[in-house]
Amino acid sequence: MVDERRFIGLLEAVPQLPPTLLGIMALGDGLEPVRRAIQGHEPNLSILDVTPRPFLDHPNALWALALNFKSHIAETGLTTSREFPQVFLRTVASYVGHGEPLLCPPPEIARAFDYEGELGVVIGRAGRHIPIDRALDHVAGYTCVNEGSVREYQIHNRQFGLGKNFEASGSYGPWLMTLGDPATRSVTTRVNGVVRQRAPLDDMLFDVSSVISYLSQGYELRPGDMIAMGTPGVLPAESQDVEGLDLARQHGPFKIPGLVHMTPGDVVEVEISGLGALRNTIVADAPAHYRISGVAAEGLRC
Amino acid sequence: MVDERRFIGLLEAVPQLPPTLLGIMALGDGLEPVRRAIQGHEPNLSILDVTPRPFLDHPNALWALALNFKSHIAETGLTTSREFPQVFLRTVASYVGHGEPLLCPPPEIARAFDYEGELGVVIGRAGRHIPIDRALDHVAGYTCVNEGSVREYQIHNRQFGLGKNFEASGSYGPWLMTLGDPATRSVTTRVNGVVRQRAPLDDMLFDVSSVISYLSQGYELRPGDMIAMGTPGVLPAESQDVEGLDLARQHGPFKIPGLVHMTPGDVVEVEISGLGALRNTIVADAPAHYRISGVAAEGLRC
Repeated sequence: MVDERRFIGLLEAVPQLPPTLLGIMALGDGLEPVRRAIQGHEPNLSILDVTPRPFLDHPNALWALALNFKSHIAETGLTTSREFPQVFLRTVASYVGHGEPLLCPPPEIARAFDYEGELGVVIGRAGRHIPIDRALDHVAGYTCVNEGSVREYQIHNRQFGLGKNFEASGSYGPWLMTLGDPATRSVTTRVNGVVRQRAPLDDMLFDVSSVISYLSQGYELRPGDMIAMGTPGVLPAESQDVEGLDLARQHGPFKIPGLVHMTPGDVVEVEISGLGALRNTIVADAPAHYRISGVAAEGLRC
Repeated sequence: MVDERRFIGLLEAVPQLPPTLLGIMALGDGLEPVRRAIQGHEPNLSILDVTPRPFLDHPNALWALALNFKSHIAETGLTTSREFPQVFLRTVASYVGHGEPLLCPPPEIARAFDYEGELGVVIGRAGRHIPIDRALDHVAGYTCVNEGSVREYQIHNRQFGLGKNFEASGSYGPWLMTLGDPATRSVTTRVNGVVRQRAPLDDMLFDVSSVISYLSQGYELRPGDMIAMGTPGVLPAESQDVEGLDLARQHGPFKIPGLVHMTPGDVVEVEISGLGALRNTIVADAPAHYRISGVAAEGLRC
């Protein structure tokens, strides 16, 4: 991107680069090859002319953090270690891209389908035992994440498991932003235009560098891996917010004024200041009827 | 396999089949195409002539169960829901195949690197909302799993996260077994020839069918996904078992007579009666020094 709308289409402008993000990062130098290649090029496309797609292709790991914002810890009343981050995994199939439908579980399965606006960190350079002061060298860029969660399943047992991994229950995008310090920014979540979360990104228990350093103690962070950094608390409901104040509409374990579940027809946006806004429409998933699915080909897309 | 050693090499004997397991299952009928194709063929290869490799290629999900054996629940003193299974995820990079080295973390990182002998269930047919009485129709076969775990990291916080996902910390294999009812079998774990776990596979809180049915309520099970069904308790140490009885050698959260950690040079086997034995040698991972790794190409192997 060179401004709010115009960008350089790499396929056309720099055909000598590999045609995918991961292919470029596999050259071993993060996104530096792009920075070098676009010198002197003028924007040749408008964002209005293209449809963003999920930009990560079969990452080895999609990490996520639980209870990493002080405001979210407070509203749940839960405890978490102050020494080690609380990390879990999501599957590739649990995420869609910008503009793609997010699937709301049928009501006979679950009703507490909740947004979680988060900062997503995309790894650009592989590493192990990464010191905190070198961690940002391994970041390709940042994106917006809706770490959508099905609360009834999330609390079925001690590990989140399925509750964080419903089909197409989360999203990331619209793009990968390579500039700036995320700690100086803020994240905002809107449901049908109403702001439901807004928090500075420096309110985290564990910041980007410390989480990268921690994970790399056991796991080799790979280009194209993503870390969703955890969600802040829900914004307090205002006095005229009939929907947000009606706790009887809530089906999750925590009744929080200002929380609304995501339901079919809703438009949910996660915006990080200066990084753009991720937008998805909520669509009803199919009823809970047995089906032998024809997804084999999709599961095999590589 | 047609007996203990001889098998039909599909690439040579039935070249019209897709050349990979997932390619065959993508035809939509599990492993039926293999059963049909090998009719009338004689074994043309010996298992002694080949090196088994991990047979799953970039599955969407590698599920695993915590606290699913009554004997393991008892020895940890932990509680778990009796209504819903406790599920979590492992990454592709956390598993190796039969005969490949398992990496022991360097001692400055962790010492409680533990075997967990388990039954692995490989999905062969995609499905959602699968009824319990149809669940086994979606199974391609079974395998042995060493769900290797780094205990210090597993208990860092509430979610297992990194402790279940160290690089090359677990394994599965040696092959996919398509015959028989696993509940009638038993799992045995040996370290350097000493039996450390032995339990019938009908001691589970949640059996294969109920776990498949549960996961499919939110997640579309895909061909090539695997579910590690949880590990039984450690076998009580015998009186002459000096190593197993020395609790001072144990570094994990639970001191259990008969438990030994996996250390470099050990040979660890997980055998399921009638399914074969998975064998791995433990090798020391590199010291905890910062390295910018050259794994980009591996992370991109599809």
